[in-house]
Amino acid sequence: MSEYKAPLRDIQFALFELNEYEAHCATLPGSEDATPDVVSAIIEESAKFCENVVGPLNRVGDQEGCQWNDGEVTTPSGFKEAYQQYVEAGWPSMTHDPEYGGQGLPHSLGTVLSELLGSANWSWGMYPGLSHGCMCTLHEHGTEEQKQTYLTKLVEGTWTGTMCLTEPHCGTDLGMLRTKAEPNADGSYSISGTKIFISAGEHDMSENIIHIVLARLPDAPQGTKGISLFIVPKMNVDSDGNILDRNDVKCGSIEHKMGIHGNATCVMNFDGAKGYLIGPPNKGLSCMFTFMNTARLGTALQGLAHAEVGFQKSLEYTRERLQMRSLSGVKNPEGPADPIIVHPDVRRMLLTQKAFSEGGRMMTYFIAKQVDLVEKAEDEEARKSADDLLGFLTPIAKAFLTETGFESANLGLQCYGGHGFIAEWGLEQNVRDARISTLYEGTTGIQALDLLGRKVLGSQGELLKRFTKIVHKFCQSHADNEAMAPYVAKLQEINKEWGDLTMHVGMAAMENADEVGAAAVDYLMYSGYASLAYFWAAAAALSQEKLAAGTSEKDFYESKIKTAKFYFDRLLPRTASLVVTIKSGASNLMELDAEHFAF
Amino acid sequence: MSEYKAPLRDIQFALFELNEYEAHCATLPGSEDATPDVVSAIIEESAKFCENVVGPLNRVGDQEGCQWNDGEVTTPSGFKEAYQQYVEAGWPSMTHDPEYGGQGLPHSLGTVLSELLGSANWSWGMYPGLSHGCMCTLHEHGTEEQKQTYLTKLVEGTWTGTMCLTEPHCGTDLGMLRTKAEPNADGSYSISGTKIFISAGEHDMSENIIHIVLARLPDAPQGTKGISLFIVPKMNVDSDGNILDRNDVKCGSIEHKMGIHGNATCVMNFDGAKGYLIGPPNKGLSCMFTFMNTARLGTALQGLAHAEVGFQKSLEYTRERLQMRSLSGVKNPEGPADPIIVHPDVRRMLLTQKAFSEGGRMMTYFIAKQVDLVEKAEDEEARKSADDLLGFLTPIAKAFLTETGFESANLGLQCYGGHGFIAEWGLEQNVRDARISTLYEGTTGIQALDLLGRKVLGSQGELLKRFTKIVHKFCQSHADNEAMAPYVAKLQEINKEWGDLTMHVGMAAMENADEVGAAAVDYLMYSGYASLAYFWAAAAALSQEKLAAGTSEKDFYESKIKTAKFYFDRLLPRTASLVVTIKSGASNLMELDAEHFAF
Repeated sequence: MSEYKAPLRDIQFALFELNEYEAHCATLPGSEDATPDVVSAIIEESAKFCENVVGPLNRVGDQEGCQWNDGEVTTPSGFKEAYQQYVEAGWPSMTHDPEYGGQGLPHSLGTVLSELLGSANWSWGMYPGLSHGCMCTLHEHGTEEQKQTYLTKLVEGTWTGTMCLTEPHCGTDLGMLRTKAEPNADGSYSISGTKIFISAGEHDMSENIIHIVLARLPDAPQGTKGISLFIVPKMNVDSDGNILDRNDVKCGSIEHKMGIHGNATCVMNFDGAKGYLIGPPNKGLSCMFTFMNTARLGTALQGLAHAEVGFQKSLEYTRERLQMRSLSGVKNPEGPADPIIVHPDVRRMLLTQKAFSEGGRMMTYFIAKQVDLVEKAEDEEARKSADDLLGFLTPIAKAFLTETGFESANLGLQCYGGHGFIAEWGLEQNVRDARISTLYEGTTGIQALDLLGRKVLGSQGELLKRFTKIVHKFCQSHADNEAMAPYVAKLQEINKEWGDLTMHVGMAAMENADEVGAAAVDYLMYSGYASLAYFWAAAAALSQEKLAAGTSEKDFYESKIKTAKFYFDRLLPRTASLVVTIKSGASNLMELDAEHFAF
Repeated sequence: MSEYKAPLRDIQFALFELNEYEAHCATLPGSEDATPDVVSAIIEESAKFCENVVGPLNRVGDQEGCQWNDGEVTTPSGFKEAYQQYVEAGWPSMTHDPEYGGQGLPHSLGTVLSELLGSANWSWGMYPGLSHGCMCTLHEHGTEEQKQTYLTKLVEGTWTGTMCLTEPHCGTDLGMLRTKAEPNADGSYSISGTKIFISAGEHDMSENIIHIVLARLPDAPQGTKGISLFIVPKMNVDSDGNILDRNDVKCGSIEHKMGIHGNATCVMNFDGAKGYLIGPPNKGLSCMFTFMNTARLGTALQGLAHAEVGFQKSLEYTRERLQMRSLSGVKNPEGPADPIIVHPDVRRMLLTQKAFSEGGRMMTYFIAKQVDLVEKAEDEEARKSADDLLGFLTPIAKAFLTETGFESANLGLQCYGGHGFIAEWGLEQNVRDARISTLYEGTTGIQALDLLGRKVLGSQGELLKRFTKIVHKFCQSHADNEAMAPYVAKLQEINKEWGDLTMHVGMAAMENADEVGAAAVDYLMYSGYASLAYFWAAAAALSQEKLAAGTSEKDFYESKIKTAKFYFDRLLPRTASLVVTIKSGASNLMELDAEHFAF
């Protein structure tokens, strides 16, 4: 089975055609260099790196895993060398601020790069992925001195970064965290506590690791309002970034886990480690959200990545594997049997993966554009609109694309029959690696509460309307297009239903706050199917235009239209069940006493 | 986290109360000994064995796996000793024919035992599980001499058995198999070929292994009509069962796989191995169905087992893990946070697991009763009815309970947040072990074709009616029961819709055979939700009766009613989407050319 191939044609479609990337970059101050030629060349170069360097290490990473020895972590064979190549090629600096050594290209281009890296080898891609979040946090909240000291090295790639939030007794509930920060006389802090689940917390790929750590000041209020953010380097450094002695932070052990074996998940022990406050005291949690939003969008890409990998591998296999004859007549008379792609149910599994991976790509690139706009748009209303869309779509993309990514990875495996369960084909690794994506950076349940409680009900429905207005506008502009009529009718129906459902839950929640939690995950999944429907309808409309204009890529655009039809016929109808369960209310969940779940 | 505890109270409910097991056994000739006291004592004894001997080996089996060395396979530490205890206690003989050393207890009691063994340690339970299928095949198709030679030793447990079907180029499509059987002068055959995916094909737990092998006679017709069945012992034996020399069948390697590491999945090389024809020449496939039906029901239990294990572990964790406060007010004011079981979405995940595991138990025990009746009922109409129900429900149970079992195992993991991904908790092993269940013994897609094509449409709907009549009768007998009204109304609606859907697909299939394949999996899942609705409604009705009669176990029966309500409110509505996708037809799957799935 061949390794990952970057889906360059589809990336072009999702980026330039559907998301009108040329026009987008042209409006972004500082992104004038991001012309289509430049962007395409960067993506192709990145594809080569992913296919030839990082992809071939995917299985090795799974089999060898990381090794812990007395606080040191050794990454799998080849990981370190690949990272050196990555740094030498200048990839870490691509989207960062030129003031600190970056190339100033749009964040959205970084999203494409992350997709490619993550699809080729998710475990490997997490090392630069965590660094990226660390850099964004430093850029937004660090002092000029901190940026000069730390950010420049991270942008260069010679150092990497982490985020240290979780403790053994608190994951979601960060208000309970206990790690302490005692002030030192020199203005630094002495950080003590234990953090767990620290991805890339210790490894052998860079000369220093910059931890962004949540901790409490001595006089801090209880709960989430008493959390501050600190920079804690693995190696102490002087202000020029020269490495001094070892800081008192050490990796106590690494986890044995279901997947992503190539990435070290570390227990980090801070024993009076020297740290530096970043951002205002007791405002650490809101500063950390910079990191978390980046990480959530990054994890949404993981869903897309595993769907794409499962799709590629299962498409290749189902075209080659000969087994049984088509029920509607022999399709491969020269062979002993037909290739299994002739069977309708195999096609259902392939098309599901295709619809989620290509659909996820359209959606994440759209979100990535909003990240650019929030940071760089000159018009305040444009920034506000982008911020609203980003807030609304991030939890949807994170949870929906990882849930459907896991489903897709499993369908990819299922296409192989019993062979899918065997390690050598790589499908089971794809499933195991995908499984973490609905858990970390906030579980699906947490994303759903963020979406329904904080974003939608918290804005009195305004954030939902930001998106449904886009859908409505699309419907209006295609009102006279007969070929689009079925899509437009369905989208309008969904748009109205979405609002009604929101109202329904909002009213119920006024009586009983548990109604929000009871509806949240189904509401999020509904929102995922609904928003993906918009992107697939847009893809169909665009493809029809291309066909009408006489494209040379007829098969490509017809494939898009057929996939859109499949999506509307076979995936979007899942909303029908969700409407019923959302409206069923909280009582069917809350009435059973916790003591009476089992006897 | 504690190990598996046999859910004895729920087994009593599903077996004696819901499935009226006392009355069932009383009508079975030869099962007069199976009084409630005896049955309960056997189940309790089996529970002890599972909890104390087999369960504690579950994690060891996963971590150590099986080791292959020059054709010999070593099972994980403790597996062999546990099997010796199992044999010494007489478990292998429980449901087998007294003429060959069995205890003659009903097959259905074996189903309960298999559930317990499989829940405690699926990999371990597969060794006796495969033997059981081998025994059933020998009993039904073997000559008296073959039974005396082989069956007695298998019943004793000193030998174990396998089934050897799959070859590298053919799994589902057995018509393509190539393994040859050349006649020898002494009436035996010389078997040559390679079989793969042979569970328990080689191991160190028994003194001999009896392979049941599909192969072709020299003059056999092509395809499935030219397949015969052979007994091929690992060690040649004389007619008294004394072990002679090694036969020419050897394990070439074992697979590295996603889960069930404790069970050896073997490549078996037959190099002119001595074999003996069992059953008539060229009728091997139909004989093998004896084995396959047993195996499919066995695999249905795997779905239930992993749902139960996930449920037990996640229930314990969610009652203990303190994180966040309930949205509807603090529930644990003394603690730093509330236990996460207060959150509606956590309850949704727990109740889903509970509804599928307890529901699956009711369903599989009902099916197991039909197995008893097919073999032993004195009345021919009773045998026919049971055979129809068995034929109809087996593919549903196999595919639906493994799909929902995998979903449940994943929800169990999800309840742990990031901790679920870590090996030490056992949830990720439960997911990995569960993953095989939708693949082997016929994938979900194959079960769906068997159900819709062969069973339902093939019988002109008669097999479906066998079941819907039971549902209809239930509805009639509860027509005046006000508390049951919502369940009865919904069941009647489903019963009608189920028939209409069948008619719809049947009509479409007359035009285009691909319509069957296009609808099959969704139709099977619909049938799963519909049939489970009947069992949950029956559980609710029974519980209401118990409560009305003044039971001392009020909490237990109220829990059943609340779970039934949850099932009808939150899981059964999934049929709403399935109706739409079933009716959407084959065109959305078939129109895309195989070459145009990706560019």
